[in-house]
Amino acid sequence: MGDLVLTTYDWVPEWPRGFVRDVRVRWALEEAGLPYRVESTPFKDRQAQHFSHQPFGQVPWLTDGDISIFESGAILLHLGNRSDKLLPADPKRRSEAIEWAIAALNSVEMASLPLFILSFTQEKRDSPGWKVLEEFLHKHRLAHLEPVLAGREWLAGAFSIGDILMADVLRLCDRFEWLKDYPASRAYVARATARPAFAKAYADQMAFFAKADKS
Amino acid sequence: MGDLVLTTYDWVPEWPRGFVRDVRVRWALEEAGLPYRVESTPFKDRQAQHFSHQPFGQVPWLTDGDISIFESGAILLHLGNRSDKLLPADPKRRSEAIEWAIAALNSVEMASLPLFILSFTQEKRDSPGWKVLEEFLHKHRLAHLEPVLAGREWLAGAFSIGDILMADVLRLCDRFEWLKDYPASRAYVARATARPAFAKAYADQMAFFAKADKS
Repeated sequence: MGDLVLTTYDWVPEWPRGFVRDVRVRWALEEAGLPYRVESTPFKDRQAQHFSHQPFGQVPWLTDGDISIFESGAILLHLGNRSDKLLPADPKRRSEAIEWAIAALNSVEMASLPLFILSFTQEKRDSPGWKVLEEFLHKHRLAHLEPVLAGREWLAGAFSIGDILMADVLRLCDRFEWLKDYPASRAYVARATARPAFAKAYADQMAFFAKADKS
Repeated sequence: MGDLVLTTYDWVPEWPRGFVRDVRVRWALEEAGLPYRVESTPFKDRQAQHFSHQPFGQVPWLTDGDISIFESGAILLHLGNRSDKLLPADPKRRSEAIEWAIAALNSVEMASLPLFILSFTQEKRDSPGWKVLEEFLHKHRLAHLEPVLAGREWLAGAFSIGDILMADVLRLCDRFEWLKDYPASRAYVARATARPAFAKAYADQMAFFAKADKS
């Protein structure tokens, strides 16, 4: 285990600020109280060095000594092994936290991200594609998640990386008003984002990109 | 650690056979040489007991003693802790295997599954939605993955759960001929699916559903 260094873009446009995935990593690091520093990589002109850390040319990646990790989900699993504030020590609870982390990434975000991408195109809201992807998100994902979130404060007993990932995925859904029929899911997002560690992570990301505007 | 029980549907239509996600779990169990048995849950009439194990009403789930896990990715991470044939012991390699497992789920499958869903609708191939999702898959995912797979036999040094997940995701892309411009990716799928553990897992799934037709 070594120094933790989080790398994100040197700048991004206004729209994604507050939603760039380094916020997930910052949030986890703040929850765990692990010291780290932030470095940057060019947003506009992505070089081979960037692809050597992140093969799809995205961010974030984290280095921990000689280990470099991409994929926000993988980074959070790694940090979970460094702090029981992120992954509970009890094997059953730990397993639950991990399954919810994967559910956020591979069940819920998989359903929300395509609609997010379509929303930036000329695709019509009543096209067969839009309708089927919207139904997939609502009927097969959010409608099932709602009763789960109505019945518990956090997904795996105590707050964990499962909540960081699920709340961050739902936070984007909420921005698009896809949660309007799911009061428990909205309350969950509000509960998660009211945590001081999220507030710090969010403010730090906003300040980081605001500073980039001035330099 | 207890007996391993994998639950899948009692029956599925012809089309998804060979691609139901229990094949990922069977594959991992066969690679690791871990004994397990298979149980089933109704495909057509999903009950509360099903949702108590898998909140989205899907399959598979795995029980390991008193721990019940859904999400194929989470199940493979769990099994990885039981066998170094699935996750290497070396910390750096292990971290790589996990990041590639997450990349398969949250970068590549997130890009391929929407197109897969659209392909069953009346969505036109030249609609704005189809085009942007197709570009996302090819330009931002498969085109970057190709040089990675051209340069190595397996994603994290030795075969791991990262390969099970990535090869299974790419196997579906290959079925839709989305890999036609990526020879190294096609060769990787061929290499992975030539493993005896995959052949056994695939044959077992096919036989399981074939038997359901007769009962």
